[in-house]
Amino acid sequence: MPVNPPSARHPEPSGTDARAAGERDALKLWLRLLACSTQLETEVRRRLRARFQVTLSRFDYMAQLYRYPEGLRMNELSRHLMVTGGNVTGLTDELEKLGWVQRHTAAADRRACVLTLTAQGRNRFEGMAREHEAWVTELLGGLRAAELRMLHDLLGRLRETVALRTGEPP
Amino acid sequence: MPVNPPSARHPEPSGTDARAAGERDALKLWLRLLACSTQLETEVRRRLRARFQVTLSRFDYMAQLYRYPEGLRMNELSRHLMVTGGNVTGLTDELEKLGWVQRHTAAADRRACVLTLTAQGRNRFEGMAREHEAWVTELLGGLRAAELRMLHDLLGRLRETVALRTGEPP
Repeated sequence: MPVNPPSARHPEPSGTDARAAGERDALKLWLRLLACSTQLETEVRRRLRARFQVTLSRFDYMAQLYRYPEGLRMNELSRHLMVTGGNVTGLTDELEKLGWVQRHTAAADRRACVLTLTAQGRNRFEGMAREHEAWVTELLGGLRAAELRMLHDLLGRLRETVALRTGEPP
Repeated sequence: MPVNPPSARHPEPSGTDARAAGERDALKLWLRLLACSTQLETEVRRRLRARFQVTLSRFDYMAQLYRYPEGLRMNELSRHLMVTGGNVTGLTDELEKLGWVQRHTAAADRRACVLTLTAQGRNRFEGMAREHEAWVTELLGGLRAAELRMLHDLLGRLRETVALRTGEPP
């Protein structure tokens, strides 16, 4: 990947004793993990744009609303989308214009606005999600079943161990 | 992690035969990989802000310039930063104001502008990179050395196999 090699974040490797070797291994793992997810995200972003003329932010936005047929408030959706950092108001305007998203007044609080996918929006999202799934299967298809499962389990261990250190529920 | 569970991207698991099981495993791995890197990035982002009042975009911007003491042109830096998607002009203005970045006229083409870190900027970045490295070591410290290395190797396999399918140099 030519873009933003995460190794850029670190000026130089640490020293040479055993503890430093452990640190170097942790750092190497971290950089490789970022590189892998960046590599996959970049490819998926490219395909979404080429195939559906859709950005990853829009896709993620629709994925969230798809999970909540009863709708989400603007601030809830915002929280769910924190990572991709999409501008929720801007995305809502765009997707409303396309007829994929609707704004409603919340039953409980008439000042609040609730967002849902329209039938057309659900339909479009399902088509994209199906293809997205096929891409992932293809991209990861070179791993043997045993490698795939071992990698899954080790990443599970990583998640647990990081969660312990950041105080999140694992 | 409460934010943007990547599983949101997929409406439902696939069917039940062997091929579908393989697809499900690929998808589960993909979601977990994204979840892990998001989990780590979120934590690092939080610590950079709390400890240095610096965003991840600024940190990545400085990391790129740190690697190129001879400087980078605006468009080169932009390409390197494509993933974090920082607004290079805006970031440059902010970092210049702090005295961490300098604009120069390119020797080869006097219309082009080259960016470098100032001595103060290099100094600040080194301090942040050192702590960043310690955080990563701490966050990953719950894995045994053998797990760490196996995970590193399997992610290497993943990178190769994905690169074959996207036509990148691995």
